[in-house]
Parts: sequence; structure tokens; C-alpha cells
Amino acid sequence: MTQVDFIRGRTRMFGIVGDPIAQVRSPEMITWELQRRGVDALLVPLHVPAADFEQTMASLMRLVNFGGFVITVPFKTRAMALADRFGLQAKVMGSINVLVRRPDGRWSADMLDGMGCVAAFKQRGIRIEGRCLTILGLGGAGGAIACAMAAERPRQMRLHDLSAERRQFITDCVARISPGTLVECGPPRINDADVLINATPVGMLDDDRLPIDVTALPPKLVVFDAIVMPEQTPLLELAERCGCTVVRGREMMLGQIPQLVDRLLDPDAITTA
Amino acid sequence: MTQVDFIRGRTRMFGIVGDPIAQVRSPEMITWELQRRGVDALLVPLHVPAADFEQTMASLMRLVNFGGFVITVPFKTRAMALADRFGLQAKVMGSINVLVRRPDGRWSADMLDGMGCVAAFKQRGIRIEGRCLTILGLGGAGGAIACAMAAERPRQMRLHDLSAERRQFITDCVARISPGTLVECGPPRINDADVLINATPVGMLDDDRLPIDVTALPPKLVVFDAIVMPEQTPLLELAERCGCTVVRGREMMLGQIPQLVDRLLDPDAITTA
Repeated sequence: MTQVDFIRGRTRMFGIVGDPIAQVRSPEMITWELQRRGVDALLVPLHVPAADFEQTMASLMRLVNFGGFVITVPFKTRAMALADRFGLQAKVMGSINVLVRRPDGRWSADMLDGMGCVAAFKQRGIRIEGRCLTILGLGGAGGAIACAMAAERPRQMRLHDLSAERRQFITDCVARISPGTLVECGPPRINDADVLINATPVGMLDDDRLPIDVTALPPKLVVFDAIVMPEQTPLLELAERCGCTVVRGREMMLGQIPQLVDRLLDPDAITTA
Repeated sequence: MTQVDFIRGRTRMFGIVGDPIAQVRSPEMITWELQRRGVDALLVPLHVPAADFEQTMASLMRLVNFGGFVITVPFKTRAMALADRFGLQAKVMGSINVLVRRPDGRWSADMLDGMGCVAAFKQRGIRIEGRCLTILGLGGAGGAIACAMAAERPRQMRLHDLSAERRQFITDCVARISPGTLVECGPPRINDADVLINATPVGMLDDDRLPIDVTALPPKLVVFDAIVMPEQTPLLELAERCGCTVVRGREMMLGQIPQLVDRLLDPDAITTA
């Protein structure tokens, strides 16, 4: 009867809030990171119906043994209203993916989606500062990646998205985070870019298209694809064939885990500077 | 990163609701029973502040991936209002400790606290039907035990409690469940009893008193103590010294687990007959 050693009455609880919830990977990945650090804590899936979000969160945030929440689709923007204090990425993006109770009972929040991408690059020793980045797609993931990458002070960023409004919004975000970075919007092009980032859904699951109209890539290019399924997208396949350095969506997901856990365990890790 | 195999996005969730919550044993015991049955499910502690109970439960009951709740102190009576359909024990006692969503979205509830005691006796092959029981203490645990034992049709029950109101209430409950059982209220006495049940807190933790004024017990007596901590109470110590058969609080707790899990997984296991 004592073969379950991962959950007890006194186990600290965290939750991931989304609708739907079955597809999320945080429960096993964040719980593993918590246990790796020797913390008696668990992150559980909480499927909150979209129509009930605000009311349900008000209740969940009063659960005494829940210290924080990871926020996922479709609540990242609506969840802004739940917090009192914001990290820089959240402030700029206007959306959050982590919400943590402070000792005074108020709540801090931040948006770490893009920081997982930065962490993956750092993990691989790939420099961003001073370099030229092309980013395809500025939706939730692409916008977060652009803002997190901007904080690393690239020389130039080329932003591509079908929505002019979204291009303008992310351009403004990048300018606030890194005034020294040259931002260019326009049709997808690589030429002298150092890093190519795909944050569009093109290449996901059975989609065999490339997100950019090319037949070859320069071998000095670093190619990142935010897509997690499949691991090997058509873009990454081409990149590997051309001898490029390849960074995978899975690495971004893994890169975000320690940062999420840092903040779940210590709201002061969310810096508002 | 795949060393956590007990929780995923699609894991079915159950919760135990109480205030406080750190002391509960259901998370590890019920989760173990769920896993033993091959069900990908978990029961997590939910510390709901007493002042917020009704409002918080309304939200928790809307979580799509939570199928049911175990209810513990101090909510067992207040939680009656949350269900639409009740098992016999709940109906008689006016309190519940399990609340399960039915396929039609409504909620069934029952009170299994006493059935764990009955299960422990059955597990040990100790007959209740036709025998004489002395029950000391008719609070939450004692009342539930009296009602569950009544369903086994004992010949006689001697009920002892300081509160006359409580004695009358449980006497009425027993009469509804088992009209053929002779119920007697009065000061604690054993004489020709077959089974002695302690459901008072006397003997808990460092309390070295006996719940009944005796120096010896007849060896044919079966002695049960609902106290879980310590496992060996002064009453059980005396009973063992006198050669009595002894049933422990821990056996009652264990006895209830499969019954709780039966109902969490299948609300139709709550029969209203």
C-alpha cells in the first residue's frame, strides 16, 4: 500500500490550465523537473472550460495547496487580468503562461514561451547577439520567440507574418525590448541571415510543405523549427541535407521547463525590470 | 525526461477536498488502488478554505477532467447540497464522503466511512449478522459505523454517546436501516456483547486512557478501535492481553479504499435502494 510515493496530502500542487488539456506535456515534464530538484510537488492537468475561465480561476487561485499555474491555449491573453505583477516578456506581449502566488497572496506572471527557444540556443552554444535572424510566423509562439530573442540583442530581425497588424505589434515589442536591433518586415527571405526560425504551422503533422520557397539553404545557417510533431519537419530535413545546424521544437519545450519551475517555486524569479 | 510515468495531460483526475488537507492519506492510497487496477488516474489533495466551500466546489465540479471527489473534514455535511442522487448511507446520515459525476452531468454521492469498518470485519471473516455490538462514540465516524453495521443486521446494538440528541438521531438511522435490530442507549457496558467498537477519540495520540471503565475483557470479544494513530491504542493493548480478536483503525481505512474507487470509476455503483 506504500508503492505510491509521488503524492501525499502534504504534496505541493501546481496545475496547467487549458481547454483542451489531453495534449499537454507539462504534467510529466514539470513534475519530473520538480522531483529532480527534490521538491515534493506535482503539476496536474486542469481542463477549464473556456466559457468558465475567469470564475474557475478565481476558485483555483484560492486553493491553499496550489502555489501556481502554467497557462496554455486558449487562455494566455485572458489570464493577464489575473496577475498583479508582470515580467518584461508578459508586459510587452500582453499574455502570460505562468502565474505564481507571492508570499503576500498577490500573483506574479510572465510569458516564457520564447525563453525556451533562447534556452535551447544557449544550451547548444549558438550565439544570438549581433547576428541576423529571420522569423517566419508571429502568432503566439512566433511573437514570444521574437520578443525573447530580441532580449539577446541581435543585430537584425526580419519578421514575416500574413497579418500586417501582427507584424506592427511585434515590431513595436521588439523595439521596446531592444532599441538597437534593426527590424525589417516583408516577404520571407534568407540571403545573409545567420538564423532561420520557423514559427508557422507549415510542416506540422502530415504537412509536407516548406514554410519558405527555397530548394537549398546555406550550410552556415542555423535552422530552428518550433514544431514539435513531427520532430523531423520538411524544413529540418532540407536543413540537415544542406549541412546546416539544426535546433528542434522539442529542445525549445525542454528549454522552458527549468525556467517555468524556477518561477513556480520562487515568484521573485519573475523580474519586472 | 520520461521518468515520470504516472501523470500526463490525458490522465483522469480525482480530488480529495478538505480543510486542512496535509494529513489525508487518500492521495497515495486511492492513487495506488487506481493504478493497481490499470487505470491512468490520480487523486490529488485540494485544500479548499472552509469559507469558500460552495463557490469553490461549483468551479471544481466544472473541471472537465475531474470525474469525482472524496470529501473529508469539515465538509461532509455541507457537501450534501452538491449532489442530486444519494446512496442509502448518505440519505440516512445526511452527510457524504464521495461525490461522482454521472454521464448525464449530474452528481451521485454516498457516505462510505462506515462501510470501511464493515469491509475490515468481512476481510477478517468476522460475522456481524445476529450478534450484539457495543459502539462507543456516535460522532462522524461512530455514526457512520453504526449505520453501516446496521445494514449487516446485528441482533442488538448498544449505542453510547454523551449527546442525547446524537444518540436519538443514530438510533433513528439504525431503525430505518435495520428495523429488526434491537437498539439500546445508555452508559458504556460490555457484559454479553460480541463486538466492542471504539469510535471516540479516547486513546488517540498520547492519550493513555481507555474509552470504557474496565480492567479486563472477555476473550471471546472482538475489539475494534477506529483510531489510526497510534496503531496500538490502550484499548487494543488490553484486548490483546485478554486474548480478544483485535481489528485496527488502519484496516477500516484500507477497507474503504476499494469501495471509494469502485464509486469514483462508476457512479452506478452508488445504489439508492
